[in-house]
Amino acid sequence: MKKCLAVDALVFDVYGTLVDTGSISAECERVFPGRGTDICEAWRAKQLQYTWLLNSMGEYLNFREVTRRALIFSFRSLGLGCDKDGERSLLDAYLHLAPFMDVKQALQDLSDSGRRLLVLSNGTPGMLDGVLANSGLLPHFEAIMSVDEVGVFKPDPKVYRLAADRLELPLDRIGFVSANSWDIAGASNFGFAAAWLNRTGSVADEVGGSARIEVDGLSGLAASVRNSGS
Amino acid sequence: MKKCLAVDALVFDVYGTLVDTGSISAECERVFPGRGTDICEAWRAKQLQYTWLLNSMGEYLNFREVTRRALIFSFRSLGLGCDKDGERSLLDAYLHLAPFMDVKQALQDLSDSGRRLLVLSNGTPGMLDGVLANSGLLPHFEAIMSVDEVGVFKPDPKVYRLAADRLELPLDRIGFVSANSWDIAGASNFGFAAAWLNRTGSVADEVGGSARIEVDGLSGLAASVRNSGS
Repeated sequence: MKKCLAVDALVFDVYGTLVDTGSISAECERVFPGRGTDICEAWRAKQLQYTWLLNSMGEYLNFREVTRRALIFSFRSLGLGCDKDGERSLLDAYLHLAPFMDVKQALQDLSDSGRRLLVLSNGTPGMLDGVLANSGLLPHFEAIMSVDEVGVFKPDPKVYRLAADRLELPLDRIGFVSANSWDIAGASNFGFAAAWLNRTGSVADEVGGSARIEVDGLSGLAASVRNSGS
Repeated sequence: MKKCLAVDALVFDVYGTLVDTGSISAECERVFPGRGTDICEAWRAKQLQYTWLLNSMGEYLNFREVTRRALIFSFRSLGLGCDKDGERSLLDAYLHLAPFMDVKQALQDLSDSGRRLLVLSNGTPGMLDGVLANSGLLPHFEAIMSVDEVGVFKPDPKVYRLAADRLELPLDRIGFVSANSWDIAGASNFGFAAAWLNRTGSVADEVGGSARIEVDGLSGLAASVRNSGS
């Protein structure tokens, strides 16, 4: 039985889904030789933790500021110092993340099949426009939507509502694509047809909703949408 | 200058603050020899992550169920299987956590100084009554308060409001004690006089409020309250 995802639109997460946050570790390694991976992992984990803590506290800081504070925490916890120039070069690396190899072709295939394509991300509008323009992905999308508009981070349902309101389609005709299991849990819980892009063979989370389908790459996703025949 | 904390009541977190969650790793090691530390660390991190994700999604599961699901995720992500008996023995370990060495004397000193003492925790009422009775700490507290009453986890302000409503004191006359930096961030943001019990020399988080004082043990906290002279 072929896996299929019968949807009229696809909403994409960005970091880790379309563009590779792992490519930041090269910049971390340049600034702190030998510690690149440590910094990169601590930074990403703390960045996400801060979004969920702010959500829980009912507070908001934009994602660039969250990312900056997570970086400062990571430096301090690893016993490293960093000047403003180093900090800025690492934050700017977020504007120059490389797309995963399978992204451009899959977006083209999905667009050719008549599906509407959107982006919905924790990133600020400036971060998103920057990274999507620099990676050449911007022209594929009809809209770039940021949580900044609602002042709360994923997986708050107000975030997923943003895309639903724009698309004006039944929720189960909207595919939501993310490499992050917790984002899939939130999007599925909201009602989207969630497609988990599990590039690394990870284990699904045990809270929230479940993925409608799981694929190991975006070409697999494009095939699943074609297979739906609708 | 002596550090001091001028408060009329103290609200305590439990896990990691009064009782040592590290003592679970012994039970993990018994069930899975050689993997105890891995399981214990993955379990605790995922347990907390699930509380924040549920908060963000606007969903609630009680803390025993969150803890159980985090354990199942940890087994799966580490490629381990566990039968129901093993699962139950690990969950029951939460009822038999050992108090840190300095806890009993400090609670007695604080109680003798006339301060009102409460507990406010993510744990279910059953988990809290169990662990505090088994560790002999229960008689020190005038109330054991669980987030279960409001159906949301720390650091949501509704949780801290529970203790404030019971105490009917100005917020800055209520000390909040936790070993978890993110809990201090939330309690301080709410308005409590937060005392960070930083047993491990950790680095403070960069979101939310800041600790009024930082101590490396509960005897230091008791001294700080005495020093306040009020």
